[in-house]
Amino acid sequence: MRFSEKTLESTLVYDGKIIKVYRDRVELPNGSESFREIVRHRGAVAAVPLSDDGKVYMVKQFRYAVGKELLEIPAGKLDSDDEDPEWRMVEELEEEIGMRPKRLDYMGYIYTSPGFATERIHLYLARNLVPSKKEGDEDEFLDVVVLDFDEVIEMCARGEIVDSKTISAVFRVERYLRGGDSI
Amino acid sequence: MRFSEKTLESTLVYDGKIIKVYRDRVELPNGSESFREIVRHRGAVAAVPLSDDGKVYMVKQFRYAVGKELLEIPAGKLDSDDEDPEWRMVEELEEEIGMRPKRLDYMGYIYTSPGFATERIHLYLARNLVPSKKEGDEDEFLDVVVLDFDEVIEMCARGEIVDSKTISAVFRVERYLRGGDSI
Repeated sequence: MRFSEKTLESTLVYDGKIIKVYRDRVELPNGSESFREIVRHRGAVAAVPLSDDGKVYMVKQFRYAVGKELLEIPAGKLDSDDEDPEWRMVEELEEEIGMRPKRLDYMGYIYTSPGFATERIHLYLARNLVPSKKEGDEDEFLDVVVLDFDEVIEMCARGEIVDSKTISAVFRVERYLRGGDSI
Repeated sequence: MRFSEKTLESTLVYDGKIIKVYRDRVELPNGSESFREIVRHRGAVAAVPLSDDGKVYMVKQFRYAVGKELLEIPAGKLDSDDEDPEWRMVEELEEEIGMRPKRLDYMGYIYTSPGFATERIHLYLARNLVPSKKEGDEDEFLDVVVLDFDEVIEMCARGEIVDSKTISAVFRVERYLRGGDSI
């Protein structure tokens, strides 16, 4: 790496349930010192659940941080560092849309806010969906919205869908299904 | 809105330079109570700087939060709530890639991590680039990397570009230039 920053001192300034916040003293590439505020997050998984007839199962839920309801693909936080992302993804799909995918293709990962957060999201294409017998998570308040995949692509393009993981996953899935691109 | 959450009490738990962290007590849609950890960030701007001959000016920089160098489109934080995003965008392009766009098209906004962060990024397509006379920001350590737009699209699709704002902006710009989609 041409540039890198060395940790001189790391201070935990908020130890939360979902996030931990650190204020680190670092050495910059030119040798001077600065501070970095970092939000540690265990990361997440998200999938585009695509039915055999070209429909996507989206979820609409209130996002407190932004003060409004957003239309997103199903997603969930990883609970620990050694949790299997694929297993977590299947669980989330069962809980959020009541479907279990028989096929899960990996679409690579994204960093959502690399300027200040460690959050990394693994993306998937979920297909061959079958109804799940599992109960939904009663602490989640969401509506399932079923849309044509083509419509979802247009909504991401036109700025009607504004969630970055959803746009990133839809983009990769669209290119993947068109062929030629493999992750 | 079908579901929403009411703030009962908001507590500032970390008052930083770039971020402020709150732990809020909220009322859930079913009337029960819970807590939300929220990272407040003033938001940002990011642009795909596209030359007349189809090249994109990207930046490669070390991202301390994720511990590696990432290839991203030029971007910058908004300094205050009333700062004009377009003005900020032009400044950032001058500082980061040494170019000034004569044309800036708005590509809508994204939320990077709506589960825990308020961060919203305004996206642009920057064209008719002319060399800027301004000096670069000496506190920024980055390399400018010039790539064909088609190659950038492929890198986003294949998972070689992993920054969510970059993927979102490239996707919207690609659809916008193909015609049919207007933000």
